[in-house]
Amino acid sequence: MEKPHNGEAKEEAKGSICGYDSLHRLLKDNLNPHHFQEVSRLLTGLNCGKAVETIALPESAAALSVEHGFDLQAFSFSADKELLRQPRVVRVGLIQNSIALPTTVHFGDQKQAIFEKLKPIIEAAGSSGVNILCLQEAWMMPFAFCTREKRWCEFAEPVDGESTKFLRSFALKYNMVIISSILERDINHGEVIWNTSVVIGNHGNIIGKHRKNHIPRVGDFNESTYYMEGNTGHPVFETAFGKIGINICYGRHHPLNWLAFGLNGAEIVFNPSATVGELSEPMWPIEARNAAIANSYFVASINRVGTETFPNPFTSGDGKPAHADFGHFYGSSHVSAPDASCTPSLSRYRDGLLITDMDLNLCRQLKDKWGFRMTSRYELYADTLARYVKPEFEQQVISDPLLHRKPS
Amino acid sequence: MEKPHNGEAKEEAKGSICGYDSLHRLLKDNLNPHHFQEVSRLLTGLNCGKAVETIALPESAAALSVEHGFDLQAFSFSADKELLRQPRVVRVGLIQNSIALPTTVHFGDQKQAIFEKLKPIIEAAGSSGVNILCLQEAWMMPFAFCTREKRWCEFAEPVDGESTKFLRSFALKYNMVIISSILERDINHGEVIWNTSVVIGNHGNIIGKHRKNHIPRVGDFNESTYYMEGNTGHPVFETAFGKIGINICYGRHHPLNWLAFGLNGAEIVFNPSATVGELSEPMWPIEARNAAIANSYFVASINRVGTETFPNPFTSGDGKPAHADFGHFYGSSHVSAPDASCTPSLSRYRDGLLITDMDLNLCRQLKDKWGFRMTSRYELYADTLARYVKPEFEQQVISDPLLHRKPS
Repeated sequence: MEKPHNGEAKEEAKGSICGYDSLHRLLKDNLNPHHFQEVSRLLTGLNCGKAVETIALPESAAALSVEHGFDLQAFSFSADKELLRQPRVVRVGLIQNSIALPTTVHFGDQKQAIFEKLKPIIEAAGSSGVNILCLQEAWMMPFAFCTREKRWCEFAEPVDGESTKFLRSFALKYNMVIISSILERDINHGEVIWNTSVVIGNHGNIIGKHRKNHIPRVGDFNESTYYMEGNTGHPVFETAFGKIGINICYGRHHPLNWLAFGLNGAEIVFNPSATVGELSEPMWPIEARNAAIANSYFVASINRVGTETFPNPFTSGDGKPAHADFGHFYGSSHVSAPDASCTPSLSRYRDGLLITDMDLNLCRQLKDKWGFRMTSRYELYADTLARYVKPEFEQQVISDPLLHRKPS
Repeated sequence: MEKPHNGEAKEEAKGSICGYDSLHRLLKDNLNPHHFQEVSRLLTGLNCGKAVETIALPESAAALSVEHGFDLQAFSFSADKELLRQPRVVRVGLIQNSIALPTTVHFGDQKQAIFEKLKPIIEAAGSSGVNILCLQEAWMMPFAFCTREKRWCEFAEPVDGESTKFLRSFALKYNMVIISSILERDINHGEVIWNTSVVIGNHGNIIGKHRKNHIPRVGDFNESTYYMEGNTGHPVFETAFGKIGINICYGRHHPLNWLAFGLNGAEIVFNPSATVGELSEPMWPIEARNAAIANSYFVASINRVGTETFPNPFTSGDGKPAHADFGHFYGSSHVSAPDASCTPSLSRYRDGLLITDMDLNLCRQLKDKWGFRMTSRYELYADTLARYVKPEFEQQVISDPLLHRKPS
């Protein structure tokens, strides 16, 4: 190889020039403790209401993270004690990773190498007692949709394919629910391709699937070349550890998509993603935290890491020359809570496992405190949208009658 | 007076212990330039896409800010040049302020003192060429709704009352549109009270009004004691300087409220607010920036400053003893752009004027780039909401069939 296959070397060098691995660590290492505390309060709600705290993990998990070089962080959100309900603490694990082999090698080998790479990270999650584990979007392949080449469709699998088989063994071994976002081939419906999350129950069974609702047409995100908008609605999966929804990647830009999972009763919504720094990095924490606040649920955000280089250069519709990589996937996986607090993020550069304890009672506590559902006036907006989607919709505009007045 | 009437002394002391006036200044003063640049990129989109730049103001405005001790900052957002449209640069001014006299003095004197206090700040805006000026929520009175005492209703005015008369002279003098959020008394409809923004045209005419759509029931925000949810829809005002909407205070927590102003064609949505640190500070930039991103328009956020103390102590429904103040209004007014960038915020402690140049062409450029409107699937959500508001609505839930299985 002439170039690093996933661009880590280049991006890590850039990171080390800046001398930081994540925003949180940059601030913590460079501000005095008092300033850091105040910045944390303003930025993350830390020390404001319920704070996030770090939690201890088994030695075995820490050993795996050292041996395999992945970032491992663990935090806890708390909630008020209630008189009539017991706490409902769930331990959630999020995995972010780069691909394992160059995109030029045999597809089967690429996928198998990702499986091998993930094993110790999943073991660390399982041995840490994670209840619900979520992997990143299309974790079983490079994010090749930038190329517009159809040969990458060979990575697609049915819902009960090899990726599901690989993961169900861990689900059984560790009594974990696992959310697995794959490129799906729908055998029963003309073999079309979908971007799909499979929900594997803690007994290794497939509880169901959800297909990505909103498909991007921005930058190199040429996914609309491969699959259409999902046809599975906004299902909430009632698992052994809580009611969960999955808002796949670009759906995070759509407040209505977040809303619909909330209306269906989700208490945690996962956002498995693949997004690059130049395009979306300043939006990344904003949209997730806003969704958690507005909908009174937890949001668990995952982004892949590294830079993926493809065999054939492609253009980006920006008038610039063809190039072979998609830009830097910046990781930074994190969890946002309904009280506006959030965890620090995983590394921008390395594989990682983020473990978070959350008491789901916090969701209803925030609904009672802020009253966003009660004050939402959904009838008004049901009417607005019903009118808007009609061709004859007229905007509610009040024009200044003096707007086009001649000077007197 | 035994206590400072608006608590500034206490809060400024707290600020000076931390040694900062705003988050931006804390970071700028305490990080090396390279780290500050990187933190700015991650937090505010600065240096990512279109950067915000500082702009020069007339000497007279700077002199007024020094003489009257208000924070004065000015920034510019740019947009790409287009071949078929000229740039549409609008200069927007936001004013945040504490009250001027103790809440115990004659109501007429309190209001007049606020007028006098605002004059030099409005003059600074006018002489700086501001096109659209927005004041904070209920700027003409203390935010007395925490008390639940009805005597504060005496501050209410009709839409064409003394506050409007006071401001229309500046609108005429400086050719400015002014958005004035008042406590409204609706003489024609039983003298009821509303929380209302009056839009004064640049010829001193009243273009129209908008009434606050979502009324809080959280913490000491007992506004529902005084007025009901607004009945004016989501009007967009076509002014000499652009199409604008007004999302008053608590409405910022409702993504559907932001959405409706966007559907009606707003390119700038103002959010005149009054909110306190303990309750909402970590949410403050999140919700505004998310609205700007999701709806491809500019959001201009204003919050009052200082702590207001009232004559009769009141309880907060939190089981704690009665107290006489509402907490610290933390200022921090700022502007968010549709490309995820945002200006630094005004002071957390002092009165201030924020001036921002924005090229409204950026709105459509972002719509074309990200395609959020195109990919929104409004038909799907019109259906979801129509079903949700019916009593017989059923959530879309997929339950694990093994959920209640006996151990084998």
